[in-house]
Amino acid sequence: MSDIDVLISEVGPRDGLQSIDSIMPTDAKKAWIAAEAAAGVREIEVGSFVPPKLLPQMADTGKIVSYARTIPNLTVAALVPNFKGAENAVKAGAQKITLPLSVSETHSQANLRKTHAQVFDEVRRIVEMLISLPDDERPEFEGSLSTAFGCTLEGRVPEATVVKLAGKLMELGCDEVGLSDTTGYANPNQLKRLIRLVKSEVGDQNLTGVHLHNTRGLGLANALAALDEGITTLDSSLGGLGGCPFAPGASGNIVTEDLVFMLDAMGLKTGIDIDALLNVRAIVLDALPDEEMYGFTPDAGLPRDYAHGGWGITA
Amino acid sequence: MSDIDVLISEVGPRDGLQSIDSIMPTDAKKAWIAAEAAAGVREIEVGSFVPPKLLPQMADTGKIVSYARTIPNLTVAALVPNFKGAENAVKAGAQKITLPLSVSETHSQANLRKTHAQVFDEVRRIVEMLISLPDDERPEFEGSLSTAFGCTLEGRVPEATVVKLAGKLMELGCDEVGLSDTTGYANPNQLKRLIRLVKSEVGDQNLTGVHLHNTRGLGLANALAALDEGITTLDSSLGGLGGCPFAPGASGNIVTEDLVFMLDAMGLKTGIDIDALLNVRAIVLDALPDEEMYGFTPDAGLPRDYAHGGWGITA
Repeated sequence: MSDIDVLISEVGPRDGLQSIDSIMPTDAKKAWIAAEAAAGVREIEVGSFVPPKLLPQMADTGKIVSYARTIPNLTVAALVPNFKGAENAVKAGAQKITLPLSVSETHSQANLRKTHAQVFDEVRRIVEMLISLPDDERPEFEGSLSTAFGCTLEGRVPEATVVKLAGKLMELGCDEVGLSDTTGYANPNQLKRLIRLVKSEVGDQNLTGVHLHNTRGLGLANALAALDEGITTLDSSLGGLGGCPFAPGASGNIVTEDLVFMLDAMGLKTGIDIDALLNVRAIVLDALPDEEMYGFTPDAGLPRDYAHGGWGITA
Repeated sequence: MSDIDVLISEVGPRDGLQSIDSIMPTDAKKAWIAAEAAAGVREIEVGSFVPPKLLPQMADTGKIVSYARTIPNLTVAALVPNFKGAENAVKAGAQKITLPLSVSETHSQANLRKTHAQVFDEVRRIVEMLISLPDDERPEFEGSLSTAFGCTLEGRVPEATVVKLAGKLMELGCDEVGLSDTTGYANPNQLKRLIRLVKSEVGDQNLTGVHLHNTRGLGLANALAALDEGITTLDSSLGGLGGCPFAPGASGNIVTEDLVFMLDAMGLKTGIDIDALLNVRAIVLDALPDEEMYGFTPDAGLPRDYAHGGWGITA
């Protein structure tokens, strides 16, 4: 990624679509993913390898991964809740797999029905399987620390636990860890502090990405704080898709369009053409007429005479 | 303001109410202002001294200023477009007056029907009048550089012009200058750069406040960037009231509730009780049933077991 400053990892087809009741048809998912890649998005989390009876929205993830692999210049990522999911992801050809580990054990039980120890067992089995693969078939394996900034079930989570679990995931053989503000509780100071603490545990190169939500409106401020701490991969979702589990009107994931506008205006390279990106919304809106899409920049439009690749930062 | 880190200047009763069609009854304005002051807000821009036939929403500003002066621990601010407005503001007892100078001369003509030279004349007359007043009756006089980050009519505005106009306002006798992102065009890098440039022209102590909009969703990220540059006064509006002149669904001013949540969670002192602040919304909603109020934190609520005065920033 030497030609870009920030890697946007689009998670809408996974995090967005799994959070809504509507099921997006496979062809629409393909069109969405192709259009975002064509707009310059370099990494897309295209689905989740979970049992279809739990999340029917994700039933075609294998097909979607195979399709997305045919798109050039795209890293195809998928979520896996366990060993079985990882096996299926590898079979389908995913280039990056992410396993969530809830820092809050109450949330881990609610989300994956597993204790930390049980999740560790899955991680061990996944790592064993991955190291048996030829290098060119082996996906990158990220352990994502969810509820890292607080939990709707447990409230505060101790920083020391986050740091310890990050170290444990690396020890078990993950390639990297990520921090996830699942609940939209994070604030800029907390985020900066936790990034520093986790980096000092696992090494700078092993924490490069964060997954932020905009539940309380702080999403882009948190993204800015993460960049200040050297984070280079930011997850976001087109139209903040998926809404919010807590409240109508409050979006879930940070909105890709607003994030890309901010970065582009700041003069940071993402490789993404903002105009093309804004046009992708129509595909999603057509396929999901009953869902609400968020975002301020799409409503307001770009500034008059907007100079792509930096606004107002030179005389 | 030694006991607080950031001064929130609530501009809803002025910037919010002048942007909407509904006219809020005087008693509701009073109740709103009293409730926000009781929640700990230290400065409120309570209205604008403009001709009532231009902005009937602001016709009672004199009465509102007089009332607000009876509230302890509150700085009562008002907008003035010209000398006549400043005279009326002084008569009513305003403690701070702000005159907007559009960096974009096209916008200046559209907004105040004045060239820069004509605005300077008003500033000169205001300063003459102010220096003739006894110290205890003399309000603070801020020159606010509007459209400082770009203009919907002119597009880009040169940084050099912003800096030159800031210097001119100080030279003419303003006590301080402010930077206003009237159009919601600003991004964090642009904001930081312009704050530095203007401070180097007028001195650090003469640029302490910025007025930000959330038109493209970057409001809180910009607020964070401003704090990084030593800005200590942030304007915001309860419920982002006033909507947005550009697009439905895109809020105008940054939302006081979200801003205060961010600062409080970061451990920065504002003097404001976030729970009490959230309760103020009901007063405004009751008085303006046809207007939409924005904000993510009011919808989502505070985090579970939220620790006021800092969240997650200590182990």
